[in-house]
Amino acid sequence: MAYLNENYLKLKAGYLFPEIARRVKLFCDGNPEAAQRLIRCGIGDVTEPLPEAACRAIHRAVDEMGKRETFRGYGPEQGYEFLRTAIAANDYESRGIDVTPDEIFVSDGSKCDSANFLDVLGSKNKIAVMDPVYPVYVDTNVMVGNTGDANGTGQYPGLVYLPCTAENGFVPEIPAEAVDIIYLCYPNNPTGAVATREQLTAWVEYARRHRAIILYDAAYVAYVRDADVPLSIYEIEGARECAVEFRSFSKNGGFTGTRCAFTVVPKDLNGYTESGEAVSLHRLWGRRMSTKFNGVSYPIQRGAESLYSPEGKLQVQTLVDHYMGNAEILVNGAKAAGLTVFGGVNAPYIWIRTPDGLGSWEVFDRILNQANVVITPGAGFGGGGEGYFRISAFNSRANAEEVARRLKELKW
Amino acid sequence: MAYLNENYLKLKAGYLFPEIARRVKLFCDGNPEAAQRLIRCGIGDVTEPLPEAACRAIHRAVDEMGKRETFRGYGPEQGYEFLRTAIAANDYESRGIDVTPDEIFVSDGSKCDSANFLDVLGSKNKIAVMDPVYPVYVDTNVMVGNTGDANGTGQYPGLVYLPCTAENGFVPEIPAEAVDIIYLCYPNNPTGAVATREQLTAWVEYARRHRAIILYDAAYVAYVRDADVPLSIYEIEGARECAVEFRSFSKNGGFTGTRCAFTVVPKDLNGYTESGEAVSLHRLWGRRMSTKFNGVSYPIQRGAESLYSPEGKLQVQTLVDHYMGNAEILVNGAKAAGLTVFGGVNAPYIWIRTPDGLGSWEVFDRILNQANVVITPGAGFGGGGEGYFRISAFNSRANAEEVARRLKELKW
Repeated sequence: MAYLNENYLKLKAGYLFPEIARRVKLFCDGNPEAAQRLIRCGIGDVTEPLPEAACRAIHRAVDEMGKRETFRGYGPEQGYEFLRTAIAANDYESRGIDVTPDEIFVSDGSKCDSANFLDVLGSKNKIAVMDPVYPVYVDTNVMVGNTGDANGTGQYPGLVYLPCTAENGFVPEIPAEAVDIIYLCYPNNPTGAVATREQLTAWVEYARRHRAIILYDAAYVAYVRDADVPLSIYEIEGARECAVEFRSFSKNGGFTGTRCAFTVVPKDLNGYTESGEAVSLHRLWGRRMSTKFNGVSYPIQRGAESLYSPEGKLQVQTLVDHYMGNAEILVNGAKAAGLTVFGGVNAPYIWIRTPDGLGSWEVFDRILNQANVVITPGAGFGGGGEGYFRISAFNSRANAEEVARRLKELKW
Repeated sequence: MAYLNENYLKLKAGYLFPEIARRVKLFCDGNPEAAQRLIRCGIGDVTEPLPEAACRAIHRAVDEMGKRETFRGYGPEQGYEFLRTAIAANDYESRGIDVTPDEIFVSDGSKCDSANFLDVLGSKNKIAVMDPVYPVYVDTNVMVGNTGDANGTGQYPGLVYLPCTAENGFVPEIPAEAVDIIYLCYPNNPTGAVATREQLTAWVEYARRHRAIILYDAAYVAYVRDADVPLSIYEIEGARECAVEFRSFSKNGGFTGTRCAFTVVPKDLNGYTESGEAVSLHRLWGRRMSTKFNGVSYPIQRGAESLYSPEGKLQVQTLVDHYMGNAEILVNGAKAAGLTVFGGVNAPYIWIRTPDGLGSWEVFDRILNQANVVITPGAGFGGGGEGYFRISAFNSRANAEEVARRLKELKW
């Protein structure tokens, strides 16, 4: 009898975004006219076209694939050296950060990487997540059996939830207890918060003291505007011994449908056997990737490489400026509507307190019905997100302006 | 203290192909002249250019991505409907096989899918693999803890090895004991064998009797030439209740560097909880993919779709004919060299008995040194592969002819 992984049965009905899609479809089917003016600010998906540099690079690579002399079959599972070298030079070396090309693993997404990294970790770790939290961190821990059944508030025993509140600026306090794995995401999804150098330094010190590992998700780093906000966990002394960093081309180069990302696993990073023996996680992750992955499509890797060319950098900057322009409009619109607003300054997400103590799914339904705008209910990011909702700045300028206008007209 | 997954420490030094690459590099570094005439018939990687239809489709899709009106962000995690519909219509419905588009999950590789499918299976299954075996099936079971430590012969306790020998035509006997998961791969990598309808029927009956699941890897199905060989496990009555099928565009469309594949999980397929409750694996796999995967790059899915167009089908047929022409040349060359040869008729792999009882890594080194040809040692596929080696037909015609010539000149 083929047994299934019963941990999957602990998962709640749907991953957040499919659930939003379901409610939106239901609304649109019942309200075909309102559906015409629907604006989606829910899922954090880019809307602007792929940078010209990337299109050109992919075209060139496809032409290579069409000729025998330049055709490429299986590539290196870790990613082509041309891309890993460009990443190391531009994202790290140019900022004086010590990350080498062979510490970079190219993949098809940060969601995949953050999920898959659990493959090389053991089952006895105490796992800490921020609350609110990007649901993938939680769900993938449920799937591998790192939790019990969800309790009444939707939290899973076995996870340590680190409260991120308006009071702590959505950067959690260092826990009193020892944890082994800590997920940190800055700029944060969903709150749009960033962590200061001092805050990250405290986390790195904590992790080193406990031989813990920080899984640092920096997928939104391109949106940081304040010069003193760290762009990489490796700007912090000692982080090479305790941190993995996830980065993506989804949100800077608009690659959400094109698919390319990377993960940094420093050679100084160890995991431990139960008997206390240190083992290189770089080696284990390399083994994982060569056994369970076949590398990213060659033309797509050329597209990602092009984002580091002079024209590519300019085009990325234009994209980021566009979305951050939207963010400013949305922040101002929400404030003008009398709402209490966070984020939107170093991140493409605006995090808004629900008015009158309304529940966040209630606000979701109300904004969908009244304003025909799709937002993301904070509760979708866990208990700590209740009482908030997220507006994404990924949109056309016209839509951002229209959403700001409609927010002001909402009746609560 | 961050614990690692100690199962990884049970894995032997390297996955087969990196080990081959290491030996080849060592040889080439030491013999720069011989390196000039090196011909690779080791890893089963295509050599001919990407079909024109696919190049054109990808170009078109990249152009769409470059325009705001036609840009696409996140796609459905399960794959675009246009591709799933084309697959269902051409690979299944046209042959009278009942597989619907929503039972198809598009991915970036069959290696990934066969590895990842363990995510939704429990830890108490008795797993059977063919011997010799594609190493990924074994290594990924080691990684998730389904085995003990390797024994002296390199086999892992906890796995049931099904001997595939010249005597049984490399199709294993149905085991006397009950197993829960069975990996079958036809046309077979590495032996090139195919299973008859009667043999597959016996496996399906066995699986249904034991409520077991067959993980059916049909990555090489495009190479089947005999009309009576089943192309899909779902040609067998009852297979929808007991089988998952993995297929790939790597070997028909030459997508090894372009990356696209798919997995069929029928809605009739259940896994079981320990208390015996049946649960849809289609639902679990869908949850797995939407949580841990973000879909295949849109332009690449358009490329895959194009392989089902009339011109795409012709171009795929030309590719397959080319490689099977190589296979015939290699089979004849090896036979003329006095070797005992299997496969190469319905598969792009030729499986050859080592002469004089030589070990297969010994033969690997000898052929590398004497003939400057890279083959794959049978032992790399497990104990049952010892005494054999594999030659891949993925090459240019000139190289296939040259390898056939060099085989005849080998001194044993």
